[in-house]
Amino acid sequence: MKILRYVADGQSHFGILENDTVYAASGDVFGGLTKGSEVGKLDSLELDIPIQPPKVVAIGLNYLKHVTENDPTRKPPEEPLVFLKPTSSLVAPGKNIELPPGNNIHYEAELCVVIGKRAKRIKKEDWANYVLGYTCGNDVSHREYQQKDGQWVRAKGFDTFCPLGPVIETDMDPSSVKVQSRLNGEIRQDNNSSDLIFDIPVLMEFITNVMTLEPGDVIMTGTPEGVGPMKPGDTIEIEVGGIGVLSNPVVARD
Amino acid sequence: MKILRYVADGQSHFGILENDTVYAASGDVFGGLTKGSEVGKLDSLELDIPIQPPKVVAIGLNYLKHVTENDPTRKPPEEPLVFLKPTSSLVAPGKNIELPPGNNIHYEAELCVVIGKRAKRIKKEDWANYVLGYTCGNDVSHREYQQKDGQWVRAKGFDTFCPLGPVIETDMDPSSVKVQSRLNGEIRQDNNSSDLIFDIPVLMEFITNVMTLEPGDVIMTGTPEGVGPMKPGDTIEIEVGGIGVLSNPVVARD
Repeated sequence: MKILRYVADGQSHFGILENDTVYAASGDVFGGLTKGSEVGKLDSLELDIPIQPPKVVAIGLNYLKHVTENDPTRKPPEEPLVFLKPTSSLVAPGKNIELPPGNNIHYEAELCVVIGKRAKRIKKEDWANYVLGYTCGNDVSHREYQQKDGQWVRAKGFDTFCPLGPVIETDMDPSSVKVQSRLNGEIRQDNNSSDLIFDIPVLMEFITNVMTLEPGDVIMTGTPEGVGPMKPGDTIEIEVGGIGVLSNPVVARD
Repeated sequence: MKILRYVADGQSHFGILENDTVYAASGDVFGGLTKGSEVGKLDSLELDIPIQPPKVVAIGLNYLKHVTENDPTRKPPEEPLVFLKPTSSLVAPGKNIELPPGNNIHYEAELCVVIGKRAKRIKKEDWANYVLGYTCGNDVSHREYQQKDGQWVRAKGFDTFCPLGPVIETDMDPSSVKVQSRLNGEIRQDNNSSDLIFDIPVLMEFITNVMTLEPGDVIMTGTPEGVGPMKPGDTIEIEVGGIGVLSNPVVARD
Protein backbone atom coordinates (compact mmCIF):
# COMPACT_ATOMS: atom_id res chain seq x y z
CA MET A 1 0.00 0.00 0.00
CA LYS A 2 1.18 3.50 -0.84
CA ILE A 3 0.24 5.98 1.91
CA LEU A 4 0.45 9.75 1.44
CA ARG A 5 -0.96 12.92 2.88
CA TYR A 6 -2.81 15.48 0.78
CA VAL A 7 -3.90 18.97 1.74
CA ALA A 8 -7.58 19.91 1.58
CA ASP A 9 -9.35 22.75 3.39
CA GLY A 10 -5.99 23.77 4.82
CA GLN A 11 -5.50 20.45 6.59
CA SER A 12 -3.49 17.31 5.91
CA HIS A 13 -5.34 14.05 5.38
CA PHE A 14 -4.02 10.54 4.90
CA GLY A 15 -4.75 9.03 1.50
CA ILE A 16 -3.98 5.84 -0.39
CA LEU A 17 -2.40 5.97 -3.85
CA GLU A 18 -3.30 3.36 -6.47
CA ASN A 19 -1.74 3.91 -9.89
CA ASP A 20 -2.23 7.67 -10.28
CA THR A 21 -5.42 7.97 -8.24
CA VAL A 22 -5.64 9.03 -4.59
CA TYR A 23 -8.36 7.63 -2.34
CA ALA A 24 -9.37 8.91 1.08
CA ALA A 25 -8.11 6.81 4.00
CA SER A 26 -9.78 6.27 7.35
CA GLY A 27 -8.42 4.64 10.49
CA ASP A 28 -5.06 4.82 12.22
CA VAL A 29 -1.97 4.94 10.02
CA PHE A 30 -0.17 2.67 12.50
CA GLY A 31 -3.12 0.33 13.04
CA GLY A 32 -4.23 0.00 9.43
CA LEU A 33 -5.92 2.36 6.99
CA THR A 34 -9.12 1.64 5.09
CA LYS A 35 -9.57 2.88 1.54
CA GLY A 36 -12.48 5.25 0.97
CA SER A 37 -13.77 7.25 -1.96
CA GLU A 38 -11.67 8.77 -4.72
CA VAL A 39 -10.12 12.15 -3.92
CA GLY A 40 -8.49 12.94 -7.26
CA LYS A 41 -5.53 12.32 -9.50
CA LEU A 42 -2.12 12.50 -7.82
CA ASP A 43 -0.88 15.39 -9.94
CA SER A 44 -3.97 17.48 -9.15
CA LEU A 45 -3.38 17.38 -5.38
CA GLU A 46 -1.18 19.37 -3.03
CA LEU A 47 0.86 16.91 -0.99
CA ASP A 48 2.20 17.20 2.54
CA ILE A 49 5.06 15.12 3.93
CA PRO A 50 3.60 11.60 4.16
CA ILE A 51 3.85 11.51 7.97
CA GLN A 52 4.87 13.90 10.75
CA PRO A 53 7.89 12.25 12.40
CA PRO A 54 8.68 12.96 16.06
CA LYS A 55 12.33 12.76 15.00
CA VAL A 56 14.49 12.25 11.94
CA VAL A 57 17.53 10.06 12.55
CA ALA A 58 20.09 10.04 9.76
CA ILE A 59 23.16 7.97 8.95
CA GLY A 60 26.36 9.43 7.54
CA LEU A 61 28.89 7.78 5.26
CA ASN A 62 26.95 4.58 4.66
CA TYR A 63 27.90 3.89 0.99
CA LEU A 64 31.57 3.13 0.40
CA LYS A 65 32.06 5.26 -2.71
CA HIS A 66 30.41 8.27 -1.06
CA VAL A 67 32.80 8.06 1.91
CA THR A 68 35.78 8.98 -0.25
CA GLU A 69 34.26 11.15 -2.99
CA ASN A 70 34.81 14.46 -1.16
CA ASP A 71 37.92 13.33 0.74
CA PRO A 72 39.96 10.40 -0.65
CA THR A 73 41.68 9.83 2.71
CA ARG A 74 38.44 9.33 4.61
CA LYS A 75 37.86 5.88 6.08
CA PRO A 76 34.43 4.24 6.31
CA PRO A 77 33.06 4.30 9.87
CA GLU A 78 33.46 1.21 12.06
CA GLU A 79 29.97 1.69 13.42
CA PRO A 80 26.94 3.54 12.03
CA LEU A 81 27.46 7.30 12.23
CA VAL A 82 24.22 8.69 13.62
CA PHE A 83 23.06 12.29 13.41
CA LEU A 84 19.75 14.13 13.65
CA LYS A 85 17.93 16.51 11.35
CA PRO A 86 15.46 18.87 13.03
CA THR A 87 11.82 18.22 12.15
CA SER A 88 11.59 21.92 11.28
CA SER A 89 13.68 21.13 8.18
CA LEU A 90 11.03 18.83 6.68
CA VAL A 91 9.39 19.96 3.46
CA ALA A 92 6.67 18.38 1.31
CA PRO A 93 7.00 17.00 -2.22
CA GLY A 94 6.75 19.80 -4.77
CA LYS A 95 7.56 22.54 -2.28
CA ASN A 96 10.64 24.76 -2.57
CA ILE A 97 14.04 23.96 -1.16
CA GLU A 98 15.15 27.43 -0.02
CA LEU A 99 18.90 27.94 -0.27
CA PRO A 100 20.54 30.25 2.27
CA PRO A 101 23.73 32.05 1.19
CA GLY A 102 26.49 29.62 0.19
CA ASN A 103 27.80 28.08 -3.00
CA ASN A 104 28.05 24.45 -2.18
CA ILE A 105 24.70 23.15 -1.03
CA HIS A 106 24.24 19.52 -2.07
CA TYR A 107 21.39 17.09 -2.71
CA GLU A 108 21.68 13.64 -1.13
CA ALA A 109 19.27 10.91 -2.26
CA GLU A 110 18.26 8.49 0.49
CA LEU A 111 16.09 5.48 1.14
CA CYS A 112 14.16 6.22 4.34
CA VAL A 113 12.54 3.87 6.85
CA VAL A 114 9.34 4.94 8.61
CA ILE A 115 8.88 3.39 12.06
CA GLY A 116 5.51 1.78 12.78
CA LYS A 117 5.87 0.67 16.38
CA ARG A 118 7.83 1.89 19.41
CA ALA A 119 11.27 0.26 19.23
CA LYS A 120 13.62 0.18 22.22
CA ARG A 121 16.76 -1.97 22.21
CA ILE A 122 15.50 -4.40 19.59
CA LYS A 123 17.46 -7.24 17.98
CA LYS A 124 18.22 -7.01 14.29
CA GLU A 125 16.34 -10.24 13.63
CA ASP A 126 13.14 -8.51 14.77
CA TRP A 127 13.59 -5.31 12.76
CA ALA A 128 10.69 -5.85 10.35
CA ASN A 129 8.13 -5.86 13.17
CA TYR A 130 8.86 -2.18 13.82
CA VAL A 131 8.62 -0.81 10.29
CA LEU A 132 5.58 0.89 8.79
CA GLY A 133 7.17 1.35 5.36
CA TYR A 134 9.67 3.24 3.24
CA THR A 135 9.89 6.62 1.58
CA CYS A 136 12.36 8.86 -0.28
CA GLY A 137 14.36 11.60 1.40
CA ASN A 138 16.77 14.32 0.39
CA ASP A 139 19.38 15.11 3.05
CA VAL A 140 20.22 18.61 1.80
CA SER A 141 23.68 19.59 3.08
CA HIS A 142 25.53 22.92 3.21
CA ARG A 143 29.12 21.71 2.73
CA GLU A 144 30.84 24.89 3.94
CA TYR A 145 29.10 24.72 7.32
CA GLN A 146 29.49 20.96 7.47
CA GLN A 147 33.26 21.37 7.26
CA LYS A 148 33.46 24.45 9.44
CA ASP A 149 31.26 23.33 12.32
CA GLY A 150 32.31 19.73 12.80
CA GLN A 151 28.80 19.06 14.10
CA TRP A 152 26.44 18.71 11.12
CA VAL A 153 23.28 20.20 12.56
CA ARG A 154 23.57 23.67 11.05
CA ALA A 155 24.73 22.32 7.68
CA LYS A 156 21.85 19.86 7.44
CA GLY A 157 19.26 21.63 9.58
CA PHE A 158 18.05 24.67 7.65
CA ASP A 159 14.31 24.96 7.09
CA THR A 160 13.39 23.04 3.87
CA PHE A 161 16.61 20.95 3.98
CA CYS A 162 14.67 17.68 4.43
CA PRO A 163 12.28 16.90 1.56
CA LEU A 164 10.37 13.68 2.32
CA GLY A 165 7.87 11.64 0.30
CA PRO A 166 5.91 11.37 -1.86
CA VAL A 167 4.47 8.17 -0.35
CA ILE A 168 5.17 5.53 2.26
CA GLU A 169 5.29 2.14 0.56
CA THR A 170 4.35 -0.50 3.13
CA ASP A 171 4.90 -3.58 0.97
CA MET A 172 8.41 -3.82 -0.38
CA ASP A 173 11.77 -5.41 0.24
CA PRO A 174 14.22 -2.53 0.85
CA SER A 175 17.37 -4.66 0.67
CA SER A 176 18.00 -4.09 -3.05
CA VAL A 177 16.29 -1.05 -4.52
CA LYS A 178 17.53 1.73 -6.78
CA VAL A 179 18.55 4.99 -5.03
CA GLN A 180 18.82 7.73 -7.62
CA SER A 181 18.91 11.51 -7.87
CA ARG A 182 18.32 13.58 -10.99
CA LEU A 183 19.21 17.25 -11.25
CA ASN A 184 17.13 18.94 -13.92
CA GLY A 185 16.44 15.50 -15.36
CA GLU A 186 20.09 14.36 -15.47
CA ILE A 187 21.06 11.35 -13.40
CA ARG A 188 23.59 12.32 -10.70
CA GLN A 189 23.41 9.53 -8.15
CA ASP A 190 22.51 6.00 -9.21
CA ASN A 191 23.17 3.19 -6.80
CA ASN A 192 21.33 0.45 -4.97
CA SER A 193 20.50 -0.05 -1.29
CA SER A 194 22.31 -3.41 -1.50
CA ASP A 195 25.49 -1.32 -1.30
CA LEU A 196 24.69 0.06 2.18
CA ILE A 197 27.64 -0.52 4.53
CA PHE A 198 25.23 -0.98 7.45
CA ASP A 199 21.90 -2.38 6.32
CA ILE A 200 18.51 -1.55 7.80
CA PRO A 201 18.35 -4.39 10.36
CA VAL A 202 21.82 -3.45 11.67
CA LEU A 203 20.90 0.24 11.79
CA MET A 204 17.71 -0.46 13.71
CA GLU A 205 19.49 -2.57 16.32
CA PHE A 206 22.24 0.03 16.65
CA ILE A 207 19.98 3.08 16.87
CA THR A 208 17.47 1.53 19.26
CA ASN A 209 20.28 0.46 21.57
CA VAL A 210 20.82 4.20 22.06
CA MET A 211 17.48 5.90 21.58
CA THR A 212 13.91 4.66 21.51
CA LEU A 213 12.29 5.04 18.11
CA GLU A 214 8.67 6.18 18.14
CA PRO A 215 5.91 5.52 15.59
CA GLY A 216 6.42 7.89 12.69
CA ASP A 217 10.14 8.38 13.31
CA VAL A 218 12.18 8.36 10.11
CA ILE A 219 15.60 6.80 9.54
CA MET A 220 17.48 8.23 6.56
CA THR A 221 19.85 5.41 5.65
CA GLY A 222 22.62 7.37 3.93
CA THR A 223 23.43 8.61 0.46
CA PRO A 224 25.46 7.03 -2.38
CA GLU A 225 28.20 8.70 -4.44
CA GLY A 226 27.38 11.42 -6.94
CA VAL A 227 26.33 14.24 -4.61
CA GLY A 228 26.70 17.76 -5.93
CA PRO A 229 25.51 21.34 -5.68
CA MET A 230 22.10 22.79 -6.48
CA LYS A 231 21.38 26.35 -7.50
CA PRO A 232 18.23 28.46 -7.67
CA GLY A 233 16.11 27.45 -10.67
CA ASP A 234 17.09 23.77 -10.46
CA THR A 235 14.70 20.90 -9.87
CA ILE A 236 15.98 17.95 -7.85
CA GLU A 237 14.31 14.55 -8.03
CA ILE A 238 14.98 11.65 -5.68
CA GLU A 239 13.76 8.25 -6.82
CA VAL A 240 13.84 5.09 -4.76
CA GLY A 241 12.79 1.92 -6.55
CA GLY A 242 9.30 0.75 -5.68
CA ILE A 243 8.36 3.99 -3.92
CA GLY A 244 8.22 6.86 -6.38
CA VAL A 245 9.79 10.21 -7.18
CA LEU A 246 10.29 13.06 -4.70
CA SER A 247 10.63 16.26 -6.71
CA ASN A 248 11.42 19.74 -5.36
CA PRO A 249 12.23 23.05 -7.03
CA VAL A 250 15.22 24.96 -5.71
CA VAL A 251 15.04 28.69 -4.95
CA ALA A 252 17.14 31.28 -3.14
CA ARG A 253 15.61 32.16 0.19
CA ASP A 254 14.50 35.77 0.68
CA MET B 1 5.22 32.19 37.60
CA LYS B 2 6.67 28.68 38.05
CA ILE B 3 5.04 26.18 35.69
CA LEU B 4 5.45 22.42 36.06
CA ARG B 5 3.74 19.23 35.08
CA TYR B 6 2.63 16.64 37.60
CA VAL B 7 1.37 13.14 37.00
CA ALA B 8 -2.08 12.12 38.23
CA ASP B 9 -4.25 9.26 37.01
CA GLY B 10 -1.44 8.28 34.65
CA GLN B 11 -1.55 11.61 32.82
CA SER B 12 0.51 14.79 32.90
CA HIS B 13 -1.16 18.01 33.96
CA PHE B 14 0.17 21.54 34.04
CA GLY B 15 0.42 23.05 37.51
CA ILE B 16 1.65 26.25 39.11
CA LEU B 17 4.17 26.16 41.94
CA GLU B 18 4.02 28.77 44.72
CA ASN B 19 6.50 28.24 47.55
CA ASP B 20 6.22 24.48 48.05
CA THR B 21 2.60 24.12 47.02
CA VAL B 22 1.35 23.04 43.58
CA TYR B 23 -1.94 24.40 42.24
CA ALA B 24 -3.88 23.09 39.24
CA ALA B 25 -3.57 25.20 36.09
CA SER B 26 -6.13 25.70 33.36
CA GLY B 27 -5.77 27.33 29.97
CA ASP B 28 -3.04 27.22 27.34
CA VAL B 29 0.54 27.15 28.56
CA PHE B 30 1.52 29.46 25.66
CA GLY B 31 -1.51 31.74 26.03
CA GLY B 32 -1.53 32.06 29.80
CA LEU B 33 -2.39 29.68 32.61
CA THR B 34 -4.92 30.35 35.36
CA LYS B 35 -4.30 29.09 38.87
CA GLY B 36 -6.88 26.68 40.25
CA SER B 37 -7.22 24.67 43.43
CA GLU B 38 -4.38 23.20 45.47
CA VAL B 39 -3.07 19.85 44.24
CA GLY B 40 -0.53 19.11 46.97
CA LYS B 41 2.95 19.76 48.24
CA LEU B 42 5.73 19.64 45.66
CA ASP B 43 7.57 16.79 47.34
CA SER B 44 4.42 14.65 47.45
CA LEU B 45 3.88 14.75 43.68
CA GLU B 46 5.35 12.80 40.79
CA LEU B 47 6.68 15.28 38.24
CA ASP B 48 6.94 15.01 34.48
CA ILE B 49 9.25 17.14 32.32
CA PRO B 50 7.70 20.63 32.53
CA ILE B 51 6.83 20.71 28.81
CA GLN B 52 7.06 18.33 25.84
CA PRO B 53 9.45 20.04 23.38
CA PRO B 54 9.15 19.32 19.66
CA LYS B 55 12.94 19.58 19.61
CA VAL B 56 15.89 20.15 21.92
CA VAL B 57 18.58 22.40 20.46
CA ALA B 58 21.83 22.48 22.39
CA ILE B 59 24.95 24.61 22.29
CA GLY B 60 28.45 23.22 22.72
CA LEU B 61 31.51 24.93 24.16
CA ASN B 62 29.76 28.09 25.32
CA TYR B 63 31.72 28.80 28.54
CA LEU B 64 35.39 29.65 28.07
CA LYS B 65 36.80 27.53 30.90
CA HIS B 66 34.81 24.48 29.78
CA VAL B 67 36.22 24.74 26.24
CA THR B 68 39.71 23.87 27.45
CA GLU B 69 39.11 21.68 30.49
CA ASN B 70 39.18 18.38 28.58
CA ASP B 71 41.57 19.57 25.86
CA PRO B 72 43.87 22.55 26.61
CA THR B 73 44.52 23.14 22.90
CA ARG B 74 40.85 23.58 22.03
CA LYS B 75 39.81 27.02 20.81
CA PRO B 76 36.44 28.58 21.57
CA PRO B 77 34.09 28.49 18.56
CA GLU B 78 33.80 31.58 16.36
CA GLU B 79 30.06 31.03 16.06
CA PRO B 80 27.61 29.12 18.27
CA LEU B 81 28.12 25.36 17.91
CA VAL B 82 24.64 23.90 17.51
CA PHE B 83 23.67 20.29 18.04
CA LEU B 84 20.46 18.39 18.76
CA LYS B 85 19.43 15.98 21.48
CA PRO B 86 16.63 13.55 20.58
CA THR B 87 13.38 14.14 22.48
CA SER B 88 13.49 10.44 23.36
CA SER B 89 16.37 11.28 25.73
CA LEU B 90 14.22 13.54 27.95
CA VAL B 91 13.61 12.39 31.50
CA ALA B 92 11.61 13.92 34.34
CA PRO B 93 12.90 15.31 37.63
CA GLY B 94 13.45 12.50 40.13
CA LYS B 95 13.58 9.78 37.50
CA ASN B 96 16.64 7.61 36.90
CA ILE B 97 19.47 8.48 34.57
CA GLU B 98 20.27 5.04 33.13
CA LEU B 99 23.95 4.60 32.29
CA PRO B 100 24.81 2.31 29.38
CA PRO B 101 28.22 0.57 29.49
CA GLY B 102 31.11 3.06 29.65
CA ASN B 103 33.25 4.63 32.35
CA ASN B 104 33.20 8.28 31.49
CA ILE B 105 29.61 9.50 31.35
CA HIS B 106 29.42 13.12 32.50
CA TYR B 107 26.81 15.49 33.93
CA GLU B 108 26.57 18.95 32.35
CA ALA B 109 24.53 21.64 34.15
CA GLU B 110 22.73 24.03 31.81
CA LEU B 111 20.41 27.00 31.82
CA CYS B 112 17.66 26.20 29.31
CA VAL B 113 15.33 28.52 27.38
CA VAL B 114 11.77 27.37 26.62
CA ILE B 115 10.31 28.92 23.47
CA GLY B 116 6.83 30.45 23.75
CA LYS B 117 6.13 31.56 20.20
CA ARG B 118 7.15 30.38 16.72
CA ALA B 119 10.46 32.08 15.91
CA LYS B 120 11.84 32.17 12.37
CA ARG B 121 14.81 34.40 11.49
CA ILE B 122 14.33 36.81 14.36
CA LYS B 123 16.61 39.70 15.34
CA LYS B 124 18.40 39.49 18.65
CA GLU B 125 16.72 42.70 19.84
CA ASP B 126 13.38 40.89 19.68
CA TRP B 127 14.46 37.71 21.46
CA ALA B 128 12.36 38.20 24.60
CA ASN B 129 9.09 38.14 22.63
CA TYR B 130 9.67 34.49 21.80
CA VAL B 131 10.50 33.12 25.25
CA LEU B 132 8.05 31.35 27.55
CA GLY B 133 10.57 30.92 30.37
CA TYR B 134 13.61 29.09 31.68
CA THR B 135 14.37 25.72 33.18
CA CYS B 136 17.32 23.54 34.25
CA GLY B 137 18.80 20.84 32.06
CA ASN B 138 21.45 18.16 32.31
CA ASP B 139 23.20 17.41 29.01
CA VAL B 140 24.43 13.94 29.96
CA SER B 141 27.38 13.02 27.73
CA HIS B 142 29.18 9.74 27.06
CA ARG B 143 32.74 11.02 26.49
CA GLU B 144 34.09 7.87 24.82
CA TYR B 145 31.44 8.00 22.10
CA GLN B 146 31.71 11.77 21.85
CA GLN B 147 35.39 11.42 20.95
CA LYS B 148 34.99 8.34 18.80
CA ASP B 149 32.04 9.40 16.67
CA GLY B 150 32.84 13.02 15.92
CA GLN B 151 29.08 13.63 15.71
CA TRP B 152 27.69 13.94 19.24
CA VAL B 153 24.27 12.38 18.76
CA ARG B 154 25.06 8.93 20.12
CA ALA B 155 27.13 10.32 23.01
CA LYS B 156 24.38 12.70 24.08
CA GLY B 157 21.31 10.89 22.78
CA PHE B 158 20.79 7.83 24.96
CA ASP B 159 17.38 7.46 26.58
CA THR B 160 17.38 9.37 29.93
CA PHE B 161 20.38 11.55 28.92
CA CYS B 162 18.33 14.76 29.05
CA PRO B 163 16.86 15.49 32.49
CA LEU B 164 14.75 18.68 32.33
CA GLY B 165 12.92 20.70 35.00
CA PRO B 166 11.65 20.92 37.65
CA VAL B 167 9.78 24.08 36.62
CA ILE B 168 9.65 26.72 33.91
CA GLU B 169 10.18 30.12 35.52
CA THR B 170 8.49 32.73 33.34
CA ASP B 171 9.57 35.84 35.25
CA MET B 172 13.32 36.14 35.52
CA ASP B 173 16.33 37.81 33.98
CA PRO B 174 18.54 34.97 32.67
CA SER B 175 21.57 37.15 31.95
CA SER B 176 23.26 36.60 35.31
CA VAL B 177 22.12 33.53 37.20
CA LYS B 178 24.00 30.78 39.00
CA VAL B 179 24.54 27.55 37.02
CA GLN B 180 25.60 24.81 39.40
CA SER B 181 25.83 21.03 39.63
CA ARG B 182 26.20 18.96 42.77
CA LEU B 183 27.20 15.30 42.75
CA ASN B 184 26.03 13.57 45.91
CA GLY B 185 25.70 17.02 47.48
CA GLU B 186 29.20 18.23 46.55
CA ILE B 187 29.47 21.24 44.29
CA ARG B 188 31.12 20.30 40.97
CA GLN B 189 30.17 23.11 38.59
CA ASP B 190 29.56 26.61 39.88
CA ASN B 191 29.44 29.43 37.38
CA ASN B 192 27.09 32.12 36.16
CA SER B 193 25.22 32.61 32.90
CA SER B 194 26.94 36.00 32.58
CA ASP B 195 29.98 33.97 31.45
CA LEU B 196 28.22 32.58 28.36
CA ILE B 197 30.37 33.21 25.26
CA PHE B 198 27.20 33.61 23.16
CA ASP B 199 24.31 34.97 25.22
CA ILE B 200 20.66 34.06 24.78
CA PRO B 201 19.72 36.88 22.36
CA VAL B 202 22.68 36.02 20.11
CA LEU B 203 21.84 32.30 20.26
CA MET B 204 18.22 32.93 19.34
CA GLU B 205 19.12 35.06 16.33
CA PHE B 206 21.71 32.52 15.22
CA ILE B 207 19.54 29.42 15.64
CA THR B 208 16.40 30.93 14.08
CA ASN B 209 18.41 32.04 11.07
CA VAL B 210 18.88 28.30 10.44
CA MET B 211 15.84 26.54 11.86
CA THR B 212 12.42 27.71 12.95
CA LEU B 213 11.86 27.32 16.68
CA GLU B 214 8.40 26.10 17.68
CA PRO B 215 6.49 26.72 20.93
CA GLY B 216 7.86 24.35 23.55
CA ASP B 217 11.25 23.93 21.89
CA VAL B 218 14.13 23.99 24.35
CA ILE B 219 17.53 25.62 23.90
CA MET B 220 20.23 24.26 26.23
CA THR B 221 22.70 27.12 26.42
CA GLY B 222 25.88 25.21 27.25
CA THR B 223 27.69 24.00 30.34
CA PRO B 224 30.41 25.62 32.47
CA GLU B 225 33.65 24.02 33.64
CA GLY B 226 33.67 21.30 36.26
CA VAL B 227 32.05 18.45 34.33
CA GLY B 228 32.84 14.95 35.47
CA PRO B 229 31.71 11.34 35.57
CA MET B 230 28.69 9.83 37.30
CA LYS B 231 28.38 6.26 38.51
CA PRO B 232 25.45 4.08 39.58
CA GLY B 233 24.27 5.06 43.05
CA ASP B 234 25.07 8.75 42.57
CA THR B 235 22.55 11.57 42.71
CA ILE B 236 23.15 14.53 40.42
CA GLU B 237 21.54 17.90 41.11
CA ILE B 238 21.43 20.80 38.66
CA GLU B 239 20.54 24.19 40.12
CA VAL B 240 19.96 27.36 38.12
CA GLY B 241 19.41 30.51 40.17
CA GLY B 242 15.78 31.60 40.33
CA ILE B 243 14.46 28.33 38.90
CA GLY B 244 15.08 25.45 41.30
CA VAL B 245 16.88 22.15 41.59
CA LEU B 246 16.70 19.30 39.06
CA SER B 247 17.68 16.11 40.87
CA ASN B 248 18.10 12.66 39.33
CA PRO B 249 19.40 9.37 40.71
CA VAL B 250 21.93 7.51 38.56
CA VAL B 251 21.62 3.79 37.87
CA ALA B 252 23.15 1.24 35.52
CA ARG B 253 20.75 0.30 32.79
CA ASP B 254 19.61 -3.33 32.63
